[in-house]
Formats: sequence, structure tokens, C-alpha cells
Amino acid sequence: MTFSTTRRVEFGDTDMAGIMHFANFFRYMEAAETEFLRSLGLTVSWREGGMKLGFPRVSARCDYQKPAYFEDVLTIAVKVEKLGRKSVTYRYDFTNQRGEPVAVGHVTAVLCQTNSPDQFESIEIPVAIREKLGECR
Amino acid sequence: MTFSTTRRVEFGDTDMAGIMHFANFFRYMEAAETEFLRSLGLTVSWREGGMKLGFPRVSARCDYQKPAYFEDVLTIAVKVEKLGRKSVTYRYDFTNQRGEPVAVGHVTAVLCQTNSPDQFESIEIPVAIREKLGECR
Amino acid sequence: MTFSTTRRVEFGDTDMAGIMHFANFFRYMEAAETEFLRSLGLTVSWREGGMKLGFPRVSARCDYQKPAYFEDVLTIAVKVEKLGRKSVTYRYDFTNQRGEPVAVGHVTAVLCQTNSPDQFESIEIPVAIREKLGECR
Amino acid sequence: MTFSTTRRVEFGDTDMAGIMHFANFFRYMEAAETEFLRSLGLTVSWREGGMKLGFPRVSARCDYQKPAYFEDVLTIAVKVEKLGRKSVTYRYDFTNQRGEPVAVGHVTAVLCQTNSPDQFESIEIPVAIREKLGECR
Repeated sequence: MTFSTTRRVEFGDTDMAGIMHFANFFRYMEAAETEFLRSLGLTVSWREGGMKLGFPRVSARCDYQKPAYFEDVLTIAVKVEKLGRKSVTYRYDFTNQRGEPVAVGHVTAVLCQTNSPDQFESIEIPVAIREKLGECR
Repeated sequence: MTFSTTRRVEFGDTDMAGIMHFANFFRYMEAAETEFLRSLGLTVSWREGGMKLGFPRVSARCDYQKPAYFEDVLTIAVKVEKLGRKSVTYRYDFTNQRGEPVAVGHVTAVLCQTNSPDQFESIEIPVAIREKLGECR
Repeated sequence: MTFSTTRRVEFGDTDMAGIMHFANFFRYMEAAETEFLRSLGLTVSWREGGMKLGFPRVSARCDYQKPAYFEDVLTIAVKVEKLGRKSVTYRYDFTNQRGEPVAVGHVTAVLCQTNSPDQFESIEIPVAIREKLGECR
Repeated sequence: MTFSTTRRVEFGDTDMAGIMHFANFFRYMEAAETEFLRSLGLTVSWREGGMKLGFPRVSARCDYQKPAYFEDVLTIAVKVEKLGRKSVTYRYDFTNQRGEPVAVGHVTAVLCQTNSPDQFESIEIPVAIREKLGECR
């Protein structure tokens, strides 16, 4: 089962070329990831044993196939493409309301614990999280 | 000769993890590209013969090595990595004020002419532009 | 009848203070306005008689009462506070999932026609639009 | 003496109306405030006695007089308009490279100490900070 969510392009997401600004696709990916994790009972940022845990990004990529326009309704399908010991790579497929492919994105995030923003320590993804993510490959 | 520019991380560029939000690196790349083109007497968006010309992005990628913090001064070196018939690929090297590598980005843009936002036609990069870009590889 | 919509605060909407960045409230207002107009069969940007029409902002204000946090679900109530000959002033009331007031915003927009971004001419709001907006005061 | 700084409008700051998006003026104000404070040896976010201190916003307003365009160089003059016991109100005058007024902004921020994002306690502005700000009215 692939998770997917929809989002309508906002006026403030566009640029003077009349299309969605390319950097905003990354915000859409992140929001889709949050919703995906929520659908599994997970989150991208939480506290555990006095530490903050989270998934900072180590790589992000987007390939653009077609412009997205103001008020387009984009469907964003989220898939776990790769599940490492400490990292997860998501794939995002954007299509518009006519079913046309708009963009494909990839983001790799690493599970880190931290006590302060200047110390991120990567850690192994706990089994309970790994199992849930593993079902969405 | 490599072009480089600097930019101080703003409060609004950070997120609740206390570091620069990953999507903002793409805005920084775009701004550095604009400055790079301006240094060559070029721009990313202009009018010519009744048409609008511009460089929409077909691919964007960023690999993150170290967080960037509020008030960090990032140096962004811009290089033309690949110069196609209709497209150009830039490489961006981000370092902080301590000389540490922060991120490496890549953006591929295609020269397009358009009369309206729903019709982008890719065209060959004119010789005058190609020559200037070619000197910065 | 007051129109209202909800929106979940995204990770990328926060800043290093751990709360939604103050400037993002203005994006939320704009998106709520678009949804409000859509509920009336209207939009903020359209073409008519060879011209582009839209509602550029002449004033925007937000008073903040309580921080909004990542994953908070904000309800945004939209009301037409003032309806001028050429302008409309919206009021936005933000509350969180516990019913607490978070912020109150006001935006004044003027109907303009334009053929190019450097010429905006303010015009009277047509009766059909005025009547729909007038019912939401 | 009024503090002022300049900033060139970026492609990503524009929207499909071909002008700087209205919400971005608030980001520009915040960045100008940071630079203003830095010019006085101050900052908007620091640590002291185990606490985090900062200036969350309680009110923000912008009145728009003229659009700003891609590559416009905006001068932003910053003035302390009001200095309360716990709060400071800044006024920002935006002009473009032709000396034309573009926008006027106002932001009121309150000095707060916090140990966690869900507890902000407003405190009196220390004399040393008050004196520096007071000279810029």
C-alpha cells in the first residue's frame, strides 16, 4: 500500500514565472513525510529519555517534469525507497489533477539524538519504527 | 576563476531543530546563481523579441554535511559543472566561517522562452551566453 | 455565517525558537482567503477581457497572542470586515486545537487590473463579487 | 542617526503577480532588525544564566505603497519607534533604487526568557540594551 496525500498550490508558492517555485517542492515533500509518519503513528521530532530525537536530512533531490500552477491539486505519493540501519530514503511522486507526472523527489534522513542544536548524534532506528517503515517499501 | 558570494543565515531561515531548514539551501543556491550571472552581465529572467526568457529548473539536489546556524556566514562558490546545448548545471559549495564544508548543491536549468506560464519551449543557449558560462567551468 | 478552515503547522513553518515563525501567519491568511473565495465561487487571480485581475495587498497586520507549535491544528476563521468600492478588508481569527486564541490578522486588498507587473490599475469591485463578499461580513 | 541596510529582491521572493510577495517584507524586516542589532553589538537570540533570551513578536504590520520587483535594490531604514519596559517597536521604511517609497512596516517584540518553547516569560529589557536601543529613536 502506498501512502498518498493531496495539496493545493497556493498563491504564495508561485514565483514570477507563474509557476510553483522549485524550492517549495521540498516543503511539500517534508509535509507529506510528516503526514505519512503520522498515518503510522510516528513523527519526525519527539522527546525520549531526556533527549530530542529527529530526522535531519542528509540529501534531498527533485526532478521536475512539468510546472505546477496556482490552485493545482497535487497528489504526492510517499514510499520508503531504502531503509538503512540509521537512515531512511523516501521517494515522492507528484502528479496533478489531470494525472500528469509533475515531479519526483527523494529525501534521505538520518535518525539523530541531540541535546542541543550543535550536537547531533546519529543512532540506529529502533525496531518498532523500522518495522512500520519497512511495510511501506 | 570560481565565483563566490557570502550570505548570513537569518533567524527566519532556521527551523525548530535550531538549524537552517534544508529547503532554504535551494533559495540560497538560486540567489547565488543570480549574483553569479549578474557578475557576467547576465540574468535569469529577461525579455527579448516580445518573448520572456528564463531558466526553469529541471533538477535540483543538495547533500548536507554539517548544519548551518543562525548568523553563520556561508560562502557559496558557484561553478558551471556542465554546459549542454539547452541546459546548464551549476555546482554550489557551501562552507561556513570556519572553512568547514556545510553542503554541496547541484541545479540543472534549461533555457526556455515563453509567452504564457503554460507554454515553456526549450531553446538553444545563444553563443554570447554560452561563451560567458563556458569560462566558469 | 463565518467561513473557517483548518491547517496543521508544518516543521518548515517553525523557527529556532521552536514556534511557528511570525511571517508564516501571513501565508496562512492568504491561503485561507483563497479557500474562502473558492467557497464563494471566486478567486484571487483571474483573466477577463484580455486583462489580468487580482487583489494585491495594501496593508497586512497580525497580532500574536500565543505561540503555535509544530503539528498544532489551527482553525482560521475568515470574515469580510470592510468592503470598500475598490478594496476589501479581511479579518482572520486563529485558534488552536484547544480553542485558545493564537493570533488575529487583518489584510486589505485592492482589486486591480494589469497587463504587466509594472502597471496595476485599481478598479471598482464588480457587483457580482461585491454581493458575494457582502454576505460574509 | 538612522540605521539602514540594503537588500536585492530575489527571484524566489516574487510571486505569480510578478512582484515581491507581500509576506516576504516581514522576512526582510526581521533580517534588517538583526543587522541593526548587530550594529549595536546586540542580537535577537542569546543565552544568559542558563536561560534562552529572545524577542518574540507580538505585532507586525506592513503598509504597501508600490510593488517591489526582482533585482530591485531595497533600502530598509530601521528606527526604534517606541521603547517600553519589556517591549520595543521598530519602524522600517522601504525605498527602492529610484528613491521611491515602497512600504512602511512596524514590528513590536517583547523580551522573553525561556527554558522550553512552551514557556515564554516576558522580562524587563536590561539597562545596557535599553540604552543602546534608546539612542536609535
